[in-house]
Formats: sequence, structure tokens, C-alpha cells
Amino acid sequence: MIRERLNALKTQMRQQNIDVYYLNTSDYHLSEYVPEYFKTVAWFSGFTGSLATLLVTLKDTYIFVDGRYYLQADQQCLKYGIKVIKLGMEGALEPLAFLKANYPGAVVGLDGKRTSIRFAKELLKQGNQIRSIDLYSSLIQNRAPLSRSKIYEIDNSYAGLSRLRKVKLIAHCLRDMVHVVNNLESIAYLLNLRGDDITYTPVFLAYMVLQDEDVYLFCDLERFDADLLEKLYADGIIIRPYDSYYEFLKTIEKRKVVLDEHKVNYESYLALSQGNNAFYDRRSIIEDMKSIKNPIEQENIRMAHIYDGIAELRFLMWLDSIDKSTVSECDCARKINSLRMEVGAKDLSFASIVAYNENAAIPHYFPEEGKCAMLDNHGILLFDTGGQYLEGTTDITRTVALGEVDEEVKKYFTLVLKSMLALSELKFMSGLNGKQIDIVARQELWAHGVDYRHGTGHGVGNYLAVHEGPPNIRYGSTDSRNEEVELKPGMVFSDEPGVYFVGRFGIRCENLLLCQKDEENEYGQFLSFETLTMVPFDLNLIDRDYLDEKSINALNRYHQKVYDALAPFITEEERAYLKEKTQAI
Amino acid sequence: MIRERLNALKTQMRQQNIDVYYLNTSDYHLSEYVPEYFKTVAWFSGFTGSLATLLVTLKDTYIFVDGRYYLQADQQCLKYGIKVIKLGMEGALEPLAFLKANYPGAVVGLDGKRTSIRFAKELLKQGNQIRSIDLYSSLIQNRAPLSRSKIYEIDNSYAGLSRLRKVKLIAHCLRDMVHVVNNLESIAYLLNLRGDDITYTPVFLAYMVLQDEDVYLFCDLERFDADLLEKLYADGIIIRPYDSYYEFLKTIEKRKVVLDEHKVNYESYLALSQGNNAFYDRRSIIEDMKSIKNPIEQENIRMAHIYDGIAELRFLMWLDSIDKSTVSECDCARKINSLRMEVGAKDLSFASIVAYNENAAIPHYFPEEGKCAMLDNHGILLFDTGGQYLEGTTDITRTVALGEVDEEVKKYFTLVLKSMLALSELKFMSGLNGKQIDIVARQELWAHGVDYRHGTGHGVGNYLAVHEGPPNIRYGSTDSRNEEVELKPGMVFSDEPGVYFVGRFGIRCENLLLCQKDEENEYGQFLSFETLTMVPFDLNLIDRDYLDEKSINALNRYHQKVYDALAPFITEEERAYLKEKTQAI
Repeated sequence: MIRERLNALKTQMRQQNIDVYYLNTSDYHLSEYVPEYFKTVAWFSGFTGSLATLLVTLKDTYIFVDGRYYLQADQQCLKYGIKVIKLGMEGALEPLAFLKANYPGAVVGLDGKRTSIRFAKELLKQGNQIRSIDLYSSLIQNRAPLSRSKIYEIDNSYAGLSRLRKVKLIAHCLRDMVHVVNNLESIAYLLNLRGDDITYTPVFLAYMVLQDEDVYLFCDLERFDADLLEKLYADGIIIRPYDSYYEFLKTIEKRKVVLDEHKVNYESYLALSQGNNAFYDRRSIIEDMKSIKNPIEQENIRMAHIYDGIAELRFLMWLDSIDKSTVSECDCARKINSLRMEVGAKDLSFASIVAYNENAAIPHYFPEEGKCAMLDNHGILLFDTGGQYLEGTTDITRTVALGEVDEEVKKYFTLVLKSMLALSELKFMSGLNGKQIDIVARQELWAHGVDYRHGTGHGVGNYLAVHEGPPNIRYGSTDSRNEEVELKPGMVFSDEPGVYFVGRFGIRCENLLLCQKDEENEYGQFLSFETLTMVPFDLNLIDRDYLDEKSINALNRYHQKVYDALAPFITEEERAYLKEKTQAI
Repeated sequence: MIRERLNALKTQMRQQNIDVYYLNTSDYHLSEYVPEYFKTVAWFSGFTGSLATLLVTLKDTYIFVDGRYYLQADQQCLKYGIKVIKLGMEGALEPLAFLKANYPGAVVGLDGKRTSIRFAKELLKQGNQIRSIDLYSSLIQNRAPLSRSKIYEIDNSYAGLSRLRKVKLIAHCLRDMVHVVNNLESIAYLLNLRGDDITYTPVFLAYMVLQDEDVYLFCDLERFDADLLEKLYADGIIIRPYDSYYEFLKTIEKRKVVLDEHKVNYESYLALSQGNNAFYDRRSIIEDMKSIKNPIEQENIRMAHIYDGIAELRFLMWLDSIDKSTVSECDCARKINSLRMEVGAKDLSFASIVAYNENAAIPHYFPEEGKCAMLDNHGILLFDTGGQYLEGTTDITRTVALGEVDEEVKKYFTLVLKSMLALSELKFMSGLNGKQIDIVARQELWAHGVDYRHGTGHGVGNYLAVHEGPPNIRYGSTDSRNEEVELKPGMVFSDEPGVYFVGRFGIRCENLLLCQKDEENEYGQFLSFETLTMVPFDLNLIDRDYLDEKSINALNRYHQKVYDALAPFITEEERAYLKEKTQAI
């Protein structure tokens, strides 16, 4: 069946004189998570994972996957004669480099709505030709419809700034520039609107153009209630059909157009190129605005973390109360997910990771029904979970003992916890970026000859994406634009060092931090972090030999803060449990 | 007299239709320290400091100076009607910005041999016109001659690599590119030659062009002994008169020319521009090679630090033995300078800083005869000194108690020492740059709300400049090219955090560190530092309350290492003294 689908695609390619067809798992908005409608790679390859690139040539078909999908791609695709390129392995080339090496000068067909301007430019720069053409949609049967969830409004008591005020601030910065936006989070943020088109991220499919103080929102009318429409009209938002976006772009002429080549699709660029416009490739200032949470957002986020802390606390109590050998990782995930919904989460913020012992050492592991591990009354459990609350987005990892654990596990847990605390306790000079403070969370682990192969922290949205740029905390390249972003008061970051020993165990501790102003003196403005997450760490996993006085004080202060924050909202029984779990060491 | 000189210059300017004449304290090689011959700003302004820019307009004359010279410039220049621009003060513009703001489009005269290509390009870019013309030399009487010190060779047992091998390595990288070098340290390094043209840095005035595996050295023949000349000829070095350099450049045609626009003068660019050449603005690969000390250089550098340690030890003993109220800062500087020469230093590596109490809080302070402070039997003395040995260049700062000191002084000394030790003890992942590890030396001070307004560390040359790029350790901009340079095994850095309380006291602790490979494992290659400096810290200034176990162990290990390193080379009396000074705490 897959072979027939590929052959049908190849027939189309021949008719259009296309040498290679490029199909990816992105949507029209280049989102991290995408609606069902865009899961088109699966149709032609059988591969059902969330991220892959398919290159179809007249002769061969290649699928490019990362480490988490090596096995799955082999199982799902090899039988159809599709070659699996395992990114990250020695000699495996990224699609762009692969095309340069193996198909120099080839005519590459792709859906320009699903590839970034930057990608297309790189392709052209290396000598390939591009045909932006959708060859696949007509071949797919019973395709999921394009999501059209109801769009709803975020009240100013959550957003902290009205959409009118946000629009005016941005328009003031843009002056005579036209600003084209494809990114769904930026659109949702600017307009204080949300939807349910994408799992885990409360956004809706739409395009946006800001021009001469006008906001054009390309999104179908029937997705709004009449009340909301009236409000949007009152605020001067001009709503046009989703499908009319590209035609509209063609009407923009002789303007300065500012757009982020990494976050705006190539089809937009083609449409705008007809109008003799000048392009300015810059990160959207909406992203900068969004990354700095205003005081009302901050107040709400604190509340979201109290809700989340209660759910986690109840999960810890449940876990303490059961015979661990009777439950699986999936049972635990279901339990914590339901507890989170009970305290008011609208959704999870990502697929819950619950990983027992060695499973926690597998990058991107998450438990699947039928395949996941059963727990037992020894060893350690790592759970990395989060919720979407109207008040904010959470993301937290705890690693807990299920019974007896090795001394080595305690040693590394303690080092990871110490590393996490070191960053959360940091006081630093304003003007630094994430690359410059990353080492604070790593130096203790490095001293012991271990490292973790992921960033220390990512930005977190406010009832939006759990991974939110542009700022982050890592020591490699910073973002897609490779721009270093200054850490500023109001930014929210995860702080999540870990250790991973393949085949043995994995440990991670993760709190969310809110960057705040600290003292200002003759040396300048100092910044520090307020910890948002309110969940105890497992004292059974601590080996005091690996903590110093500073870390012990930091841990005790944190636990006291957790107790004080949650105590007013929980039952007496829960309070007693929490008291014990947060006792000073 | 100064007024007359300025008027003579203005007459020349009028004849040449020049609006503004630009004169700086640089030499033809854009050196940090310069030969006497180039101290021409003094002739026209009376200003005798080491760094300043003079802008002469037909109406006004401006001198631009930094913080250390505010007072001196006022005293020396105001009386001649010269306006003093104090860089670093609110509203004070750098010369480039000053010209843009106040003399837009003006014709600026300057000596193209004493300004970088980059500076000239910036000037042109902002709309000024440039006339490269030396209007000042003909007006200066009794000018010091251009230095012509004897040039001598560094034996391979010091250099570790013969000049032939170095030249071949560089030629291999250059392939068909022509490489133009003005920087004196790069020339001295590549050719294993040294001279005495400049105080503190054993270099000689010369230009160099590498072309098709040939080395052209522009330096007058009579500066070499016959033996050395023969060796240079044997190695294929082509020696041409210093003055013939620019004419030679004009013979280079239709070539790819690689040069560092920050380190090659504008006159070179003008000469090369006549030949239809293509320019590549890059840091010289000689600088990269020079920054990584080879194993033989490393062995020698260790020895230089033993010599230096002995001199410092003797200074500490002397200081301990005298009535402090009988000596001045200058007496101390003379004493340590002579002790250093006695152990074999060829020269100092910079003007010795000896600063008592509040003087140590003045940036760039160094004691001057007649003006310097007398010491007393209380308070603290900071001395930042270094030597030029054939084996290597040293740079060390110690702060010691002269008697009773306040608890606050002890607190801050201990924090500074702890900060210095934290960096020297760091084990880190290869691939990082100095910007990413700077925080390790600052975080403890930041936690106490203080900072130091200078870099944590600079690179150090090998019997060359004590401040050597390109790598360094700081959190602001990294180098003139604003390129981040990866830290690599074989690089030598200073590690010199400090605290400065104006009007009260200043503290700095400085050791030199040699970057080395540490373990390599599944996570990659780790790096760490070997401490080169071998001089005890004053235990009387330590307040244990501000040290943790890790710092105490690091200090004790360091002191043991100092004892072991110096003991074989000193007298019994000195050994007993050192034993006491390096006792474990």
C-alpha cells in the first residue's frame, strides 16, 4: 500500500519534472507540535512518529529521523524499501547536506507552506532548484480535516495587558514596517486569544499581518462566537478568511517587510516577492514581548504552580501508598494526568514522561501502553510532566525512590539536585545571556566527569508552548537564529540538569524559575531567580556527603517555601504528609 | 609653545584642505606599548600619558583620555586651550562618534600607518573623508630616533618549534593566500626572534608578508648579527629594508590577501588596493598558533614561574622583616623589580603596580616617585608585577597584610581568593569560550553584591606581550574582532578577580593558569587548569567563615605545590619561611 502511494507520488513528480520531493512533519506555521491534518509523512512512509523528513526520489525514498525514532522507523519503514537515515549517527547527513552531497543541482519539489524561508534559501544557495508545489494532498484519502476548534479569549486579568495595548506597543516599534507573522504562539499571545487546534499547546491556526497600525488576522469567522467577534472588531482587528492570506500578501507592494526567515514559510516569501518589497530578516518583537511576563502574568503563574504542586503532592502520596509492583509507567502517567486535570489544568503541557530505572536514561522516552515497564518496590522513578492552566504553563521533573536504592544512585541524585539548586540560587549581573550562566548548573557534574546532553533550561510560555524561545540556558547554540538573548526580569526558565547512564538509570531534577531584579548598586543591576515550582524533592535519595552547607540551606529554604505555599490549600492529612516531606535536613 | 606647535599644524592643515587632523599614541604596528619615537601626541598637547587621541580642528583642539588620565590631561592640556574629553563619563563620545556628531562629512587627515584599516573604514562609512598624510613629523624637533635595537634569536630549546617548521605550518594553511602582518608579536613569534624596541615587550619593529611559501621580513639588515643573518637566509627568510614595505605591497597584484583589519594599518591597505587584490578580513592564524603553547614552551614556562616565585618569596621575606613605615610604594616596586632581575628576568613584563590600601582601589594605579604613598604597619598592600624571562612571561598579584587589618578586609580577601581558586579548580567540557566560564570566578562575589570592572583573565604571551590575544576570560565583549575564542589546551590565562572600594581599599589575587586536557570519556573531552604561579597567599588575611571545604582543600593543595616547587631552589632560611607561609589551614 505504502509502495503504491509512493509510486503515485513519483508519477506526479515525473509529470512535473521534479527530481526529489521533500515532505516534512511541519504545519503551515512551522510549529513544534502540529494538528492531525499535517501528519502526511505517515501516509507515504508508514512512520507515525512526531518528527521526520521524507525525501522521495524517482528511484529511492529516504526517511530522516533522530535518536528516539531509530527503532520505530526501522520497524515501520524498512519493509517498504524506505531507507532510514539516522541523524546523530556517524556519517548521517541532515536533509539539506544530504541533498547537496547526493543530488547536487536537483530540482526539489516541496510544499512552500510547510518549509521556512531560511530552509528554501539554503537549498537555493547550495545549487538546488525549488518547485513549491503540493503533490501529496490530492493523493491522501480520508485525511483528518484541518482543525477548526472554537477560539476563545484570555481575560485581561490573566493576560495583564489588553490586546489593544499590546498591538499599540508593537505598532509603535514597527513604524512604517509591515510585519508578517506565521507563528501561532505569537498570534495567540498578541491577541489574547487561544484555541485547541494542537495538542498540548492552546493555539489556533491563523496568519497575521501588522501594517500601518492595522492588524489583519487570517482565520475563518465561524470559529469565533459573536460576542468575541464584536470585541475584536471594536479593537480594530480585521479578520479575513484563512485561505485568503497568500492573496493578501500579493497586494503588499514596495514596503519594508520584517519577518523571521526561520518562522515564516517560503510560500509567504514567494507571495511577497511579487510586490517589490524589501525584506528584513529579524526575530519578531512579539516574541521578545511574550518572553517577558508582566506582573499580572507573574502573579497568575505563581498560582498555576500551587495548583500543580497540589497535583504532584497527591501523586507522591498515592505512589507512597501503593505496592509499586502492581502498577506500570502508564498507570502512573494516567494517575498524575488525572490529578492534574482535577486541580484545574485545561490540558497537559506535553506528553507525560514516566520512566523507571534504565528507561529514564533513554533520551525522549515516554511510556506507551503495552510496551511500558512495570514498577517495583526498589529503584527510582523519574516523572517529567506539566499542565496547561489558564494561569500559566508548568513543567516539572522529580526523581523518587520506590524502595531501596544503590549508594551510587543517591550520589548522583544529590549531585543533580545540588546542580539544580546552584542555578536557582544564582545572583548575577544583568546583561548576561543563557550561554554565560549554563555552567553554573554543570560545574559540579563536570567535576565528577559527567555531563547531560541537553540544555539546562528552556523558556516557558504563559498558557502557551512549554518550550518557548527565544531565551534559553544552554552552552551550545542558543536558538535557530543563533542569537544570544539577554536574560531579563520576567522571563521564565526551566532548570533541569540530569545524569543518564544507559542501561542503568537516569536522574533529572527540574524546577521552573522566574528571573527577577535583585539589588541595584554601584556595580549595576543584579538579577536572581524566584523558584516557581512547589514540589518537594525526595529526601530518601540524598547523600549528605555530596552537599555543602550552602546547598543544604538552599534545599531547606526551598522546602519551607513549598510547605508554606501549599499548606493553606490542602487537607490535614496532606499537610502532615507534606510537613514530613519538607522537613529540614 | 604648544600653542605655536598647534598653529603650525593648522597651517599645514589649511594648505592641504584638511578640516580635522587625527593623531594617536599608536605606532606603525598598532602596538599596546610603543617606542619613544611615537610619543608625538605629547609634542602637540603637552600630554605625556601612554594612551590618548588628539583631534585638531582649525578652531579647537580636543584630547580624548580614559579614567586613569582625567586629572593628568586637565593639568597638562587645559592651559593650552585644549579641550579634554573624558571617555567613560556621561555623554563623552569616542573619537569616531565625536567626529560623526560634530564634524559630519569633514575631511579628516591622519597618518594611515598609525590607524587600523577598520578604523579608517568606519570613518569612511560614517561619511567622513580621509587624507592619509603625515603632517606632524616635519614639525617635531629633537625627536627620539626610531628604535633599532639588536635583534636576537630564541633557541629552539625555548621556542619548541623551529621557525622553519612554524613557517611551513602557516604556509600550509595559507595555500594561495598572501598574508600581511603588521603585529610585532606575531612576527617575533613566527620567526623565533626578539628585540628591545619596546619597553616590557621584547619585540622589534618590522613588517612581514607571507606569500607562496616565502617570508618577506621588512627590517633593516644592520640590526642582525652576521651569524643570525646566515641562519635566516638558510631558512629562506627574505629580508628587505623596513622602509621598502609599502612599495613592496604595491607589487602584489590580483591576489587573495588575508589580513586582520584591526591589526594592519590603513596605509598597507591603500598600497595593496592599487593591485586589484581581493581582501579577506580574518584574525591571523599566527595568533592562534601563538596562543597555544607547545609542550617545550610549557616546560619552560613552568621554570619561569619557579624563578618568579623565588623573587616574590624574597620580596615577602623582606617586607616581613622591615618597619613598613620607613618605605614607600616606590621603594617596594624597586625592591621587587631588582629581586626579579636577580633571578634572571630580562625585563619586567609591565610597570610594577604597588598600591597601599585605598591606592589599590584606583584603576590602573601605579606608584610614581615623589607622589606615591608611604606604607605603615597596618592595612594591606597589593602588588601586581611580572617579569620577562627567556623561559616565559609572568604576571602575578598578591595582596598582603602589613599588620592589623579590619574584619571586612579579611572577608573580602577571602571571597576574592575563593573566587580565584574556583576558576583554577574548574573542570569543564571542551568547546567552551572565555565568556562561558567567566562567571565561575564571579558568582561568589556577585552573591555578596560586588563585582570587578575588569576581565577575569587575559591571555599571556611566551616571552612576549603580557596581554596576549585572542583568547581571554571575561563577560563583556571578548576581543577587538568580537569573536569568541574556544579555550584550548596549551593556552595560558591570568585568573585575577578583585574587589575595589574607592577611598578605602582594593584587593586582587592573580595566578596564571595553563589550560590542559583532563579526562576524556563518553561525554567528550574535559579540560582543566594547571596553576603556573608559585607564590603563597597571605594566611593572615583569611577568614575561614567565608571558605568552604572545597576551597580550603584547594588552597592547601596549592600551598603544598608551591612549597614542593620552590624548596629545591632556595636557602634553608627561605625554606623555613616558605614552610610556615604554606602551612595547611
